[in-house]
Parts: sequence; C-alpha cells; structure tokens
Amino acid sequence: MSTYPIVPGHEIVGIVTEVGSKVEKFKVGDRVGVGCMVGACHSCDSCDNDLENYCPRMILTYGAPYHDGTNTYGGYSDVMVAEERYVVRIPDNLPLDAGAPLLCAGITVYSPLQHFGLTKPGMHVGVVGLGGLGHVAVKFAKGFGVKVTVISTSPSKKKEAIEHLGADYFLVSRDPDQMQAAMGTMDGIIDTVSAVHPLLPLIGLLKSQGKLVMVGAPNRPLELPVFPLLMGRKVVAGSCIGGMKETQEMIDFAGKHNITADVEVIPMDYVNTAMERLEKADVRYRFVIDIGNTLKSA
Amino acid sequence: MSTYPIVPGHEIVGIVTEVGSKVEKFKVGDRVGVGCMVGACHSCDSCDNDLENYCPRMILTYGAPYHDGTNTYGGYSDVMVAEERYVVRIPDNLPLDAGAPLLCAGITVYSPLQHFGLTKPGMHVGVVGLGGLGHVAVKFAKGFGVKVTVISTSPSKKKEAIEHLGADYFLVSRDPDQMQAAMGTMDGIIDTVSAVHPLLPLIGLLKSQGKLVMVGAPNRPLELPVFPLLMGRKVVAGSCIGGMKETQEMIDFAGKHNITADVEVIPMDYVNTAMERLEKADVRYRFVIDIGNTLKSA
Repeated sequence: MSTYPIVPGHEIVGIVTEVGSKVEKFKVGDRVGVGCMVGACHSCDSCDNDLENYCPRMILTYGAPYHDGTNTYGGYSDVMVAEERYVVRIPDNLPLDAGAPLLCAGITVYSPLQHFGLTKPGMHVGVVGLGGLGHVAVKFAKGFGVKVTVISTSPSKKKEAIEHLGADYFLVSRDPDQMQAAMGTMDGIIDTVSAVHPLLPLIGLLKSQGKLVMVGAPNRPLELPVFPLLMGRKVVAGSCIGGMKETQEMIDFAGKHNITADVEVIPMDYVNTAMERLEKADVRYRFVIDIGNTLKSA
Repeated sequence: MSTYPIVPGHEIVGIVTEVGSKVEKFKVGDRVGVGCMVGACHSCDSCDNDLENYCPRMILTYGAPYHDGTNTYGGYSDVMVAEERYVVRIPDNLPLDAGAPLLCAGITVYSPLQHFGLTKPGMHVGVVGLGGLGHVAVKFAKGFGVKVTVISTSPSKKKEAIEHLGADYFLVSRDPDQMQAAMGTMDGIIDTVSAVHPLLPLIGLLKSQGKLVMVGAPNRPLELPVFPLLMGRKVVAGSCIGGMKETQEMIDFAGKHNITADVEVIPMDYVNTAMERLEKADVRYRFVIDIGNTLKSA
C-alpha cells in the first residue's frame, strides 16, 4: 500500500530553524512537535469544529498525497516543513524525547477521556492494555484525578501499573472472580488493545450509562452483545487521535502535570532491532529515535 | 422461565376507579396508563436520577417478584393496582387505545432520541425497521422536526413509510447503490431490529460523531467493525424504555403533537389468532386488546 520513496515517522519533535513570512505562532528557536497529520480540507464541519482528525481529507504525516501533489514525508529526517496549524508548542518543562509520543499516543487517550466526560474527580476509569497508549492513558487519567484500574491479561504487569504508573487497581482480565467483583463499577474504559478480544466482560465492568471507548483497531470485527448495552444505556465508541487545538491543550496539560511517555531513546542504526523488539512488545513503552545526533552516522 | 399463575400485558390504559389515601397525583376518573415496570429500589443512582428503568432492582409489570413477595400481574385484567410513581396521565386528546402502545414502544424510541441529542430541527435521523417500535420512532422524530429516513429490507414499505407515516426518505438496506449514496449523511440511527443484522452499513450511514442506538435485542452478538467507529468518533449504544418522569414527558409530547400508534383493536378471544399473525408480522403495527368490553365474554 505504501508509495515509494517513503520517509516514515510521526510523533516528531524539534527546534524551529526557519519560519515562513505568514507564520504567526512560532519563531526560530521554539520547541515544537508534529503528530499524525499535517493537513486537512479546512472547510468541512469537522475542520470548522477543530476536529481536523475527522476530516475526510485529513493528510497523514507521511506517505499521503499533500495539497501540492507531492507525497508527505515523516520524521525520520533532520528537517521537516509543516503548516503552522499542524505544529504544537512543547511546554518548556517537558523533555523533547519523552514528550514526543504524546503527539500521537497522548492525544489518542486524552481526547476520549475529555470528549466522553471521563475526567471528573471521583470517577472510575479502566484502561485495557498496558502498552504505548495504555501507559499514558493511566498517567492522563490520574492527572485528571480519576480512580484508575488497569485491565490486563498479564498478572506480571500489576507491580508496574500500580507502583510505577500510579494506577489505583489492577484487574487480570482472565480471572473470572476478579472481573466479577469489579462488575458495574466503572464510568468508562479506554480500550487500547488492537488484537481481537471479547467486549462482553468489559461492558460488564461498566456502570449504567458507562462508556467503552476503543482506540485500538482490531483487524477483524469484534462480537458485540447488544442486550447488555440496552440494559444500562451503555455506549461503545471509537476515537482517533484529536484535533490540533485539543492536541495543544493536551500537551499543555501534560506540561502542567509533568506527564511524559516512558521511552527508550535509540540511535538511527538500531531501528531494525527495535522493530524486532516491538513485535515481541519488548519496550517500555515507546522507542524514540534520536534523529538529530544519529541520522547522519547511520 | 415464567412463574405461574401469570397474567401478561404491558402498555396498559384505563380509568382510575380508586386511589389510596396517600395518592397525590391522581383522582377517580383520571385517564391513566402503566408501561413495562411497576417498581424499583428508589435508592440507587439510577432511581435518584429518574432512571428507574436502569435500576438493578426494577420490577417488571408482570411475572416479576414484587416488594411484598407476590408476583406482579399485568394488564390482561379488568382491574390493576399500581404505585402512583409508575402511573402516567394520558393527555385528554389522545385516544386510549392508540395511546397505549406509547407506554412501551413510544418511550423506547423517544428516550434515545432525547438522550443522544437527536432532536434538533435540521438533523437527519435514520429508523431501521418499520414495526411496532419503528413506526412510532418515525412519528416522534418528525414531531421533533428532524429529517427522517426509514431503512428497511422491504422495498414494499416505501409508500407506507413516506405517505402514511411522514418519513422524508426511504432506503432499501439491500440496495448497495442506495446505501452508498446515503453514506455519511445521518446524525443518528434508531435501530429497532431484533434479528441478527450487519452493523457496518449502518455505521457507514452516520456522519462523524454519529450515533447508532440499538433498541432491539438480537439474541446473538452482532459483528462490530471497530475501525469505522474510530474514523469518525462514532458511537454504538443501547437504550431500554425510559424513566417514569420521561415517560410522562413523552406522552405529553405525543398529546401536543397528536402522535399515536397505529393499532388494531381486538377482542380478548382473538389473542391466539393475534399471536399467529404477530409471528408473520401481519399487523400494522400493534394489537391492542379491548379488555374492558371483551374479557368477561371471552
């Protein structure tokens, strides 16, 4: 499906080296980032409502046809040109490397927490899956002051979830007794799992009016039991990154609450090994490539 | 599963013949109705929010254990006793027979239109299935002033939907060209079908942020494609009747807009034939039994 030549890479951070004559928001030297998209139509309902991410003509950061007919090139590069609407300012206190993954993983979980009203202190939010998305979901949810339960198939992640990431509780989804005890206790769940998995137990964890928000995309349809949705006016929804206005809000919130992703910074010539490790989920939780210092020597 | 003796019958209307000493809302001679439920716990979050219908201890109108340990008996009876919280006043202008089905079918579709914000004039709402629920969904949606499209497998229902019920458009769900042309045009869909059916085409009909609300309960899980939900922050939800406060609002709204169900009034001794016809969907759209005049002679 890819069009070559291709330069991959999203979740991109750097320092502004040059600005166009009409740029108003940024100046040379600013710390900035680019996420998953670099353009949209700017005339549809979604664009008018700062939801460029849902614009049917949204342009992905790499491998997509740009307005001028060229292909977009991503962040595996020592320079990048982007329209200022698609550039966010990184707060001074956030490290660039650990802040970078927030531009996709962060907004992917922040946006549904906000949109589906899961940010009120005292609420109880579940996070399914503890990977690149899940671990920042826990941090943002705790930032909002809600009670967080990590739901995972791996009991081995309990210590990490509670002691390191600050989750309040941990549920082993394969343990029927634990799941039964937690039935009907959650206001919402952010489901980050992109493998096919059962929804019924997750719907059971929700209170009446609870919301199960999918942010991972399994490649086959999931089984949706309808009766349990009806009985509590429950919702299953999807959410995909966020608009640029909200992405700036997200990173500002992260700055205020010192939220960063847990990253392993690697040199450019390590990418093939990193890909192999990714397949085994052997990273906590995101690889970040130090392009600036290592691209030319690779 | 039924406990005998059983007296079935919900969507019940009649005239008050007697009131208890603490009854405040009704007096002898009032035109009243009872829907699907006659009790709940009155102390949970759902009850506190006028959502007795989602109370885990909600008591169904018939065949369910009541507070006093007896079984509840439904409306196939010439008398009925109910707590006033579960009794609604029928507006003077609504005929009792054609108003009766609103107490279940009406509130089942009115509540999700309200709750999911599908009542703003100019919006476009789809109604899947044209039976007891679907035909009143069309009438309520038109009452709110939204544009209504009926979605059905049967092209033969087009004339009825548009000329008789007042729908604006009719889509044959088995016609790929028609479905393709309507992609991304609807703010919400009320899906009344209780047979197993595909959700993907319905999700495709929704605009970004659109909501597919299930009010029928297929007895097997449906296939839920997740990616199309993500790409437009779409929602699949369930909804089940409504609380008593909203049921009164619904019937008042029906009175104001002259909304009734289309009914065929039958005598009590016709019920077995009616059951056979129901199985063949041979009724437009609800049988109503004239208990008062025909129970004793049956």
